[in-house]
Amino acid sequence: MEQQFREIHQKMTSYNEAISLLYWDMRTGAPKKGMDLRSETIGTLSSELFALSTSEQYGELIAGLKLQTGLSAAMQRSVEEADRQYQLNAKIPPAEYREFVVLTSKAESIWEQAKEQADFALFQPYLEQLVETTRRFVGYWGVKNGSVYNTLLDQYEPGVTTEQLDQVFGQLRKRIVPLVKQISESANQPETDFLYGHFPKTAQQDFSFDVLKKLGYDFEAGRLDETVHPFMIAINRGDVRVTTKYDESDFRTAVFGTIHEAGHALYEQNISSELSGLPVDGGSSMGIHESQSLFFENFVGRNDAFWQHNYDNFLSYAPSQFQQVPVLDFLRAINEAKPSLIRIEADELTYALHIMIRYELEKGLFDGDYEVKDLPQLWNDKYEEYLGVRPSHDGEGVLQDVHWAGGSFGYFPSYALGLLYAAQFKKAMQQDIPNFDELLSSGQVAPITAWLTDKVHRHGAVKKPLEILEEATGETLNGDHLADYLEAKYKKLYQLV
Amino acid sequence: MEQQFREIHQKMTSYNEAISLLYWDMRTGAPKKGMDLRSETIGTLSSELFALSTSEQYGELIAGLKLQTGLSAAMQRSVEEADRQYQLNAKIPPAEYREFVVLTSKAESIWEQAKEQADFALFQPYLEQLVETTRRFVGYWGVKNGSVYNTLLDQYEPGVTTEQLDQVFGQLRKRIVPLVKQISESANQPETDFLYGHFPKTAQQDFSFDVLKKLGYDFEAGRLDETVHPFMIAINRGDVRVTTKYDESDFRTAVFGTIHEAGHALYEQNISSELSGLPVDGGSSMGIHESQSLFFENFVGRNDAFWQHNYDNFLSYAPSQFQQVPVLDFLRAINEAKPSLIRIEADELTYALHIMIRYELEKGLFDGDYEVKDLPQLWNDKYEEYLGVRPSHDGEGVLQDVHWAGGSFGYFPSYALGLLYAAQFKKAMQQDIPNFDELLSSGQVAPITAWLTDKVHRHGAVKKPLEILEEATGETLNGDHLADYLEAKYKKLYQLV
Repeated sequence: MEQQFREIHQKMTSYNEAISLLYWDMRTGAPKKGMDLRSETIGTLSSELFALSTSEQYGELIAGLKLQTGLSAAMQRSVEEADRQYQLNAKIPPAEYREFVVLTSKAESIWEQAKEQADFALFQPYLEQLVETTRRFVGYWGVKNGSVYNTLLDQYEPGVTTEQLDQVFGQLRKRIVPLVKQISESANQPETDFLYGHFPKTAQQDFSFDVLKKLGYDFEAGRLDETVHPFMIAINRGDVRVTTKYDESDFRTAVFGTIHEAGHALYEQNISSELSGLPVDGGSSMGIHESQSLFFENFVGRNDAFWQHNYDNFLSYAPSQFQQVPVLDFLRAINEAKPSLIRIEADELTYALHIMIRYELEKGLFDGDYEVKDLPQLWNDKYEEYLGVRPSHDGEGVLQDVHWAGGSFGYFPSYALGLLYAAQFKKAMQQDIPNFDELLSSGQVAPITAWLTDKVHRHGAVKKPLEILEEATGETLNGDHLADYLEAKYKKLYQLV
Repeated sequence: MEQQFREIHQKMTSYNEAISLLYWDMRTGAPKKGMDLRSETIGTLSSELFALSTSEQYGELIAGLKLQTGLSAAMQRSVEEADRQYQLNAKIPPAEYREFVVLTSKAESIWEQAKEQADFALFQPYLEQLVETTRRFVGYWGVKNGSVYNTLLDQYEPGVTTEQLDQVFGQLRKRIVPLVKQISESANQPETDFLYGHFPKTAQQDFSFDVLKKLGYDFEAGRLDETVHPFMIAINRGDVRVTTKYDESDFRTAVFGTIHEAGHALYEQNISSELSGLPVDGGSSMGIHESQSLFFENFVGRNDAFWQHNYDNFLSYAPSQFQQVPVLDFLRAINEAKPSLIRIEADELTYALHIMIRYELEKGLFDGDYEVKDLPQLWNDKYEEYLGVRPSHDGEGVLQDVHWAGGSFGYFPSYALGLLYAAQFKKAMQQDIPNFDELLSSGQVAPITAWLTDKVHRHGAVKKPLEILEEATGETLNGDHLADYLEAKYKKLYQLV
């Protein structure tokens, strides 16, 4: 039975590899005249994969294995994980699922239009239908952890609930909101003009390759390509690719994008090979995955020690306007923080506030008193309250993200959880690696990655997110470590004391 | 019924797109640690595709449509073509087909070893099994056109028989063999040293892109990448890719490789969009496909007029050793012809002789008195007879090509047919485009491609190879046109009077 289960899963893995490559190619260089057919092909293979993943045979194997004793830990979690996915997929009546796919596809194209025209009313009926459909689906799945929204949350971050999020987000917000205010009012703003001078793409490319190598990314098991929205994609066990974007008037997009995706890739490249071909051969959760990309982006890439080691090399690629900039001024510039309207452009300090706003709105939509029609007003009020800025139209407000149009509710919190987890890992790592900064300033990333591999990467999805967190750090979710780190870093950078 | 037939074929097309991309990626840049799993994935999807293509449902639809009247010409030929493929696949008992796949995979790896060690005895038992299995398969398919070998030939070049090949190949051989001898004994050998100087890859790349654009290759519906063995691959209707190889000590590999693959790509890019999604949306035969690549490689790319227009541009990319070479010396060098041992390195003049040798051996194996064990001796004797050279070992003799190890018998003649067809098209084109050379020397390729599109490309596989030939040229296979062209060209180049 175990063998048959592995075989079906193996087949699903093959379909996933094909779909991933078709997608990667589309985003990195496929010619535009082939795009329509390409989308159809991805659609066809996705339907085939969906049919496999909801087949009676697969369901029976899972049910049988759930009753079986003596399974290895990896196999037992694989069966659990497969069961969770199977229930999610198979409990929705196929006709309703198809309707939902059509709805999201329509909603995404309407959303694009609405965003461009800053016209929420255009998108509103679609969003209402999406919320209604999602509620209906939760009915099929059964409510988990006491509320509709908890059920959704659990799909992305198994075991995490609104009770926990309210507590840690509150803890964090109480300390960050005043800090953001202080900083934006500080007289000690960094000089940043030199960041925006022309920086040729090929030089950025060469530096990005260098940085990936220094971080320990294995180019024999991956590659780096250019795209519009950077992403990491695991094509197969030995082929984990990263992509980045080159903005010739702001090199930070490419460099920090590359480092961020490298964090995701190192996770995938370091999952124990014993899990190969099993449903647990992947990240533990969206949030844990994001913690690894953010760990590298923030704790490594935006760290003084990292640049002490890499700045000379950076200058060898950088254009003239950088050549007279001392490393300390460079560090202040790349760590500039300020309240802003757009999530994907937000800095390390304000990012979590953008997420909290989305989280509160989603929770209110599914569990509280919010209605879709009230979202623009609520959004703008919260931005004013938390960040001190107010969107002038919905295009830079409630319409900025695609997630809701794709029917993804409960996903946003994982971004902030990534920050929280990362800060907690960093705090715990300090015990085992007290010379963290010295390692970075001498270019030694390997011991840091080895710690993360031991505590996080190698386990794949054998452990759930909170298990990983608790075993690695000895405590559960705690917003103080992130707040401590941000306070210390930004008070120093903005000379607030 | 027509709709269902289209739908199944559409699904098969999606699988083909995925498999093609997985293959393309493997040959152009996939990281090596992912290769084993990649092969498995290709294997899994290929099995799924095979199952679809031999399904009872598909067979019944084909059988039903064969009885239906009033089908469009494209649909009628699609049903015929689908039926042909279906019979080929479905008549082999699945267990035997699986055994055959395993056998070819083993034979290919043993062949690699045997070639390296120049040890035919190692490969012999596998080749014997492959011949035996192929004979058995012909038994399932039923003998076509009177002989086992004709049955195989018909799979690659529908309608062409050994009777025709013996006649045209004989006609051609009678005129080329003495010409090759005269040339190799001529005192007027071209100066070629400058060809082998270092030519940086990036410069070759830039020139290759230029040439593709000048030939009318549509970069919005394709791309050019680097590989070890150049190929063209149609990923989908709007995505027809070419690959080439850069040899820094012989630029001809890249330039003529690119032009050759461009010929294949122009064919695919110019098939009528009305055939989109049908089984006839592809080339008419291997030989007709090859005629298009060879037309561009030889009649365009090795043509004096082409270089009169392109030489200055070439020199702008070429390294110093070319700068003092007059275009006429350049032309003599790139058209150097001489007897040689290796098919894939052979020139335009001797290439067909390499093919005839393989053809005669294959025919003898399946229809005549040859046995596998006698192939090395027969091979060497024929090389001596036709080309005046004798391999010193089987690695540069009978073991040089992979085709037989892959179970492909009857494929080789298509290469020579490509040359014959191309020369016949060229001859016929001369009526409609008497100023062929003037067009090329002023950089106008479009009218030439338009003629080929009208006579060949747009029809896809709606017309069979000999139909295309006869309708375009007014005659059937005729070896004289190729012989005339080669005689005229090489007598002039080698100043043979």
